[in-house]
Amino acid sequence: MCLLGIDLGGTTIKAGVVDGGGRILIKDQVATGAKEGARAVLKRIVDLAGDLLRRQGLKRRDIKAAGIGIPGSVDVGSGVVRLAPNLFWRDFPLRSELEALLGLPVAVDNDAHVAALGEIWQGAGRGFNSLLMVTIGTGIGSALVIDGRIRRGIFGYGAEMGHVKMLPGGPFCHCGGRGCLETLASATAMVRQFREYLAAGLASRLQDSPELGAREILAAAAGGDELCGRVVDLAAFYLGTALANAALVLGPETIIIGGGPVRAGEVILEPIRKYVAESLGDWQTTPLPVLAASLGNEAGIIGAARLALELYCERP
Amino acid sequence: MCLLGIDLGGTTIKAGVVDGGGRILIKDQVATGAKEGARAVLKRIVDLAGDLLRRQGLKRRDIKAAGIGIPGSVDVGSGVVRLAPNLFWRDFPLRSELEALLGLPVAVDNDAHVAALGEIWQGAGRGFNSLLMVTIGTGIGSALVIDGRIRRGIFGYGAEMGHVKMLPGGPFCHCGGRGCLETLASATAMVRQFREYLAAGLASRLQDSPELGAREILAAAAGGDELCGRVVDLAAFYLGTALANAALVLGPETIIIGGGPVRAGEVILEPIRKYVAESLGDWQTTPLPVLAASLGNEAGIIGAARLALELYCERP
Repeated sequence: MCLLGIDLGGTTIKAGVVDGGGRILIKDQVATGAKEGARAVLKRIVDLAGDLLRRQGLKRRDIKAAGIGIPGSVDVGSGVVRLAPNLFWRDFPLRSELEALLGLPVAVDNDAHVAALGEIWQGAGRGFNSLLMVTIGTGIGSALVIDGRIRRGIFGYGAEMGHVKMLPGGPFCHCGGRGCLETLASATAMVRQFREYLAAGLASRLQDSPELGAREILAAAAGGDELCGRVVDLAAFYLGTALANAALVLGPETIIIGGGPVRAGEVILEPIRKYVAESLGDWQTTPLPVLAASLGNEAGIIGAARLALELYCERP
Repeated sequence: MCLLGIDLGGTTIKAGVVDGGGRILIKDQVATGAKEGARAVLKRIVDLAGDLLRRQGLKRRDIKAAGIGIPGSVDVGSGVVRLAPNLFWRDFPLRSELEALLGLPVAVDNDAHVAALGEIWQGAGRGFNSLLMVTIGTGIGSALVIDGRIRRGIFGYGAEMGHVKMLPGGPFCHCGGRGCLETLASATAMVRQFREYLAAGLASRLQDSPELGAREILAAAAGGDELCGRVVDLAAFYLGTALANAALVLGPETIIIGGGPVRAGEVILEPIRKYVAESLGDWQTTPLPVLAASLGNEAGIIGAARLALELYCERP
């Protein structure tokens, strides 16, 4: 039995054919081209899927179902994307549209949920029953898994760690709030903080770099650049405190950190662990492992396949 | 079938005989006298229980089990109280001691958990499957109920909202941390904030009151005292923000606020609701009711009886 896993990002569409054991048989990616509109994006997904099947020598009937993760809020029951700013979508009936085009049952969920499903199935979360996962990127995605299942809560969108308020009067967030975690600890926030420190007169070896992202800041911090070190420490402080606060209420078995910046390794993981421990306090004697996601770019594909498996293959 | 519900506080021991439908048949209270030591406290509990049974014309064998809520951290499996500063207890085997003295099975849990069980059984939480409850007092207790059961998490102590960090570099907390919610929004914190505003030169009609507590501050705020209004607003801001942050991760069906200050009514509930809504943001369209606990002083007795019922009467 095979499944189609699709990871629809603001920049790239990744897709793969995944077997029932969670192995990717074939995968590939194309540009999203979100600005050309939803029809064009859907056509690229369908073409990519057809291409993968052809190259793997599979027919449509060899695929049981498809799963897709998207960067936004999803009503999982109806498969309608409520809001996906990076795709310019609002109230878009993704499931029904894609089911018609693919001729397959389609399961839709938020990309952070899908990544968490991937990690608990095949990655850093294997063996845990509950976990809290955050994904650091342009924003901050999050997912809460309790008893092996994504918990969506009454809002229906699941964990929204990106919008917990960590700094009264802090930076404005696109959600309308201020001081949301993603304005303080996302990749975007690190770049903004870097520029603020520069404007305040601090020096960095990166100060004349024309193209600057979280990756460059993390590399410079690892190489001893003081300004970049302060940027990373501040982001880790807010993230670690927010994670500890959530853990104090929830008590998950583990915390998993995903997203591009985590690939920089200990330069960001170590301060996150330090601030999580500091915020939890010494009186918490049960260890709470803070782990890096281990599936990297494949979490979205594997997790989307898992979502399809759960929704269409495991339930009666 | 009857149960014995005991609410052991730092100041008062309340106990009652509760029937299987959650009605209190008889109740009474005595001073705790915690400074006289654990033996003396246990003797008062046993004497109070014996007195209630006698007055109600019941024998020991009419009682199926006893439950007790205590102000501190409990290892629920063993019934050992890990830390209860208000009782001066540390690693005290309350369950085994009390079972020997009462001749009954005894269930022990944290008082905030017990109050939440009471509220979901017979109070403001009836009809909900999940809730987050905070109890404002000397500190801030909390409990998380998911699918009708107290969630204890990996730390085993359940929700610890009182120690989520809301203000970097904020007031020192007895837990060793700084800026914990209970240093900012408890009854104790309101009194401290009142004194800080006075010291900063603000005026209040209460400034010459020798005995001052949260109750007086809330009454003055309701009567238009500006300084007291600011104290209440600040406490509500921290509490509302922390509750919204937890709700963004968890999505409980309702939030219940208990403890003495809530009896002051809208003067504190209204700003808490306002800050919860503000922190959640406009994009959360599902209403999240923020309700006052409705069992008052009886929540501990009823909840402790419920705890005993769950542990000793409902499980095979």
